[in-house]
Amino acid sequence: MSTYADKYFPGEPDAPKVVTKTIPGPKGAAAIKSLSEVFDTRCLTFLADYSKSCGNFIVDADGNVLLDAYCQIASIAMGYNNPNLIKVAKSEKMLRALVDRPALGNFAGVDYEEIQRDILKYAPKGQKYVWNGLSGADANELAMKAVFMNYQSTRRGYDKPFTAEEKKSCMQNLPPGNPELAVLSFKRCFHGRLFATASLTRSKPLHKMDMPAFHWPTGEFPSYKYPLPENVEYNKKEDERCLKTVEDQFKNWHCPIAAVIVEPIQSEGGDNHADAAFFQGLRDITLKYGAKLIIDEVQTGCGGTGIMWAHERYNITPPPDLVTFSKKMQSSGYFFHDPEMVPNLPYRQFNTWCGDPKNIIMAGAIMKEINEHGLLPALRETGLYFYSKLEELQNKYPQILSNLRGKGKGCFLAFDMPTPEKRAKFLSDMRLNGVNMGDCGQLGVRLRPGLTFNKKHVDIFIPIMDRVLSNL
Amino acid sequence: MSTYADKYFPGEPDAPKVVTKTIPGPKGAAAIKSLSEVFDTRCLTFLADYSKSCGNFIVDADGNVLLDAYCQIASIAMGYNNPNLIKVAKSEKMLRALVDRPALGNFAGVDYEEIQRDILKYAPKGQKYVWNGLSGADANELAMKAVFMNYQSTRRGYDKPFTAEEKKSCMQNLPPGNPELAVLSFKRCFHGRLFATASLTRSKPLHKMDMPAFHWPTGEFPSYKYPLPENVEYNKKEDERCLKTVEDQFKNWHCPIAAVIVEPIQSEGGDNHADAAFFQGLRDITLKYGAKLIIDEVQTGCGGTGIMWAHERYNITPPPDLVTFSKKMQSSGYFFHDPEMVPNLPYRQFNTWCGDPKNIIMAGAIMKEINEHGLLPALRETGLYFYSKLEELQNKYPQILSNLRGKGKGCFLAFDMPTPEKRAKFLSDMRLNGVNMGDCGQLGVRLRPGLTFNKKHVDIFIPIMDRVLSNL
Repeated sequence: MSTYADKYFPGEPDAPKVVTKTIPGPKGAAAIKSLSEVFDTRCLTFLADYSKSCGNFIVDADGNVLLDAYCQIASIAMGYNNPNLIKVAKSEKMLRALVDRPALGNFAGVDYEEIQRDILKYAPKGQKYVWNGLSGADANELAMKAVFMNYQSTRRGYDKPFTAEEKKSCMQNLPPGNPELAVLSFKRCFHGRLFATASLTRSKPLHKMDMPAFHWPTGEFPSYKYPLPENVEYNKKEDERCLKTVEDQFKNWHCPIAAVIVEPIQSEGGDNHADAAFFQGLRDITLKYGAKLIIDEVQTGCGGTGIMWAHERYNITPPPDLVTFSKKMQSSGYFFHDPEMVPNLPYRQFNTWCGDPKNIIMAGAIMKEINEHGLLPALRETGLYFYSKLEELQNKYPQILSNLRGKGKGCFLAFDMPTPEKRAKFLSDMRLNGVNMGDCGQLGVRLRPGLTFNKKHVDIFIPIMDRVLSNL
Repeated sequence: MSTYADKYFPGEPDAPKVVTKTIPGPKGAAAIKSLSEVFDTRCLTFLADYSKSCGNFIVDADGNVLLDAYCQIASIAMGYNNPNLIKVAKSEKMLRALVDRPALGNFAGVDYEEIQRDILKYAPKGQKYVWNGLSGADANELAMKAVFMNYQSTRRGYDKPFTAEEKKSCMQNLPPGNPELAVLSFKRCFHGRLFATASLTRSKPLHKMDMPAFHWPTGEFPSYKYPLPENVEYNKKEDERCLKTVEDQFKNWHCPIAAVIVEPIQSEGGDNHADAAFFQGLRDITLKYGAKLIIDEVQTGCGGTGIMWAHERYNITPPPDLVTFSKKMQSSGYFFHDPEMVPNLPYRQFNTWCGDPKNIIMAGAIMKEINEHGLLPALRETGLYFYSKLEELQNKYPQILSNLRGKGKGCFLAFDMPTPEKRAKFLSDMRLNGVNMGDCGQLGVRLRPGLTFNKKHVDIFIPIMDRVLSNL
């Protein structure tokens, strides 16, 4: 059967090709040196040549051709130079969005309703509206703003005016106008690096050191034992233990907790998974204490786990109050369903651009493409195959690979290495053998291929990994 | 002499044309009603038809043609459907940026150095580097991150590692890892609506009500008397009075103030101007107390005041430490000159996208266009002419117009109306007579035409305003 990649990436290479002894090679290294005069290049893995990249393969400045299982930190959904997205990029609608970028909230264009409806078509189950932002961190901050405004409006009476004292104190950044309210996040979570989102994030000190922070509580996120079928009892108790830490914070925190924010899979923090029971438990606690539940689908959303929105797998009831997105969507924002999450007065949730129509157009096009071509069922199949092959490698190299996880969640797979040093060498060796991937958490390696990744690519990936492991 | 608009907007209308009795008219109102099912339309002025808009004229859903002196809240620099920007929008480089959006910090493209250098060519005097963001608020938050990291690194020793206590406390959002440090902003300022930027912003309670906030200090921004030549002594004392409030905060605030952030002209807060002496005074205070000076050019930058960067007019010495930008640039970020404003470790100032190349390409193209076509000298001339004509109206309608300001600052002009109600009616009447403009502060009306606005447009604008005022 012809795959999406076969059909739309006829020029996709059959295999990686590494032509230099290091990556970056000499040409890339020279270009990076020059670039470093005007850009912080310390985090560069390599310099890419996007004009030559195709489908699931990325090409670097030296002409190295790598199978890409990382895809711009999980943010390229449809492969490089996807011809159907190129058509959208060349459309009149996109041209307008590029040269006449509107201040959407004040002067939306006549074509805007269609653009907005195009992304709402694929909203998570139970969600009716969307608010647009510009990045994952921005989406989470906007969602928190909606929550705090709703929390105080509910207390005050949704349609009640601000009091004189609130107005005066808020100009001094003091309560009651700027109340002390908290959002609970989880140990090892990542929600962004703006100031309020950095206050949520607990993945690494490096992500938030030296920034003034809000004093907000954390709960424990489950640390499961793998393989799952052999650790059912342990993991169930782990859910319960963690839920108790959350409820304890609600009981004891010095100020009200207005929301809980959680990733369906903690990604940056190590690909930490949790069961439906854990997420339903969070939902129940938030309902009990009058808090909102925000699901952060920035990394997991838009099909990455084999369904459009990863949290739908847990059938959280009632659905979460807000669901944030970014990365693969190219655009960002939050979905919600309660009209009272729209602040009671205009201009409270507002900024000049209220999103970026060119990115929103792209988001709609990506989701349409995913659905029209049945990419998610295909990805689920690929994911199971990929998992089974990685499981074979884990059995073959038990001293190196452990905690393989993500079964049944598309290609959103991860495993652990014995030490950070070993992991660094493994990732570098994989790259030199033609595969690009990323790390997460203390010991994790995460796979984040695009949604066009299929069995053929798994069959390229696995022998390379086998070879690299045998020499590690 | 043929103007830029004559040359590049041959299809630009000769005059506004209003065809409906209300704006929005029946067609727009129906479309907005439908749009409101999926978008918060409470702030919509009207629905625009960008495909029909041209140059300095915006067309709405009903076919009304308005001279646009507001330009998407000051964010359209080069007119609607600018043919030279359309060329850029259709370029291969832009196509790549649209369909292969990179995680710049990890995988910048081979063409990225050129894109980055293109905006650095027009950096403010004394600034050498740029860090990219996604909006004005994002730019200001990124700039504050750079400041706080620099402040603590300087205290710790730029290359010194974090202590164990810092690492542990920072995972709990507590000092010393997350120190209590402040940024001083000014009464009536606007720097954005994310959490840390909302903590800076003091324009209106509505902009920040109900959000938890950092307890940060404010200084007084001058309130000048107009006309300036008649109030030299008063305004000089006002500068001194305000500077003293800033120095008092440095002396008395309960935690260190790491930076002062200020707009060259407080825009959202009412188009409040200050003299070079005030800005130099701020520079001197920041140097005295070891704080950084951040100039927020989000609304004033990219040529709006007749020079590329408004603060250059004040010849601040030494130049500010960081200059933030957005709006007319389409892109956003901050310029800086001290290499130590780059955090000592990689991945401290980082996020998935590190900017958006398509917007950065557009920023470079816009600045190049401005310079190649000499738009700023032309705008300065237009501005003086516009000011003189508005002054005539102010003399003619002294009960309605007052505090005309912005002379010598391009078309970045403003004046006050007697009451908010009168102002609302004036703006609505102007629109119904074919001119779109905006308000600011308590009583202000701000003019924010694009950089392609010229004498011809002034000569359209003034008689309409005269007519509207005579009937107000």
